[in-house]
Amino acid sequence: MELYVGYLAAFMGTICWLPQAWKAWASRDTSGLSLAANLMFLLTVSLWFLYGIMVNDWPIMIANICAILIVVSIVAAKLRYK
Amino acid sequence: MELYVGYLAAFMGTICWLPQAWKAWASRDTSGLSLAANLMFLLTVSLWFLYGIMVNDWPIMIANICAILIVVSIVAAKLRYK
Repeated sequence: MELYVGYLAAFMGTICWLPQAWKAWASRDTSGLSLAANLMFLLTVSLWFLYGIMVNDWPIMIANICAILIVVSIVAAKLRYK
Repeated sequence: MELYVGYLAAFMGTICWLPQAWKAWASRDTSGLSLAANLMFLLTVSLWFLYGIMVNDWPIMIANICAILIVVSIVAAKLRYK
């Protein structure tokens, strides 16, 4: 049971910023986004990706490479439309 | 070594949305924030908190209760100043 909760949490954590990336590019309204918070989150998922490599855990690597791509696109929108 | 990377990732993941919460309340500029993304992230950290309870892991519980408080404050700012 706890494994399902963990997998669901990992899956949600991977996709949850997709609506934010979409909104940022579609609306070009990024003034309310904190660049600091998004850069810290980018560092966070990059560290998790590195951790996944270190412990050779594919689910952690895959989840976090997806998250990295999404957050990079949010940071790019923030820098593009600031 | 990988443990330090994991702890650093967990710590960063806990505090990284603080600047966003601060910015949302200080600027009242929340139009660019995606409510869907923040609600999905709230569900994510709530599921991780539940997972922490299930596997009786205090670091996971503590990290995610902090994250829940931060994200609730972002969602509250979004609803207050939309």
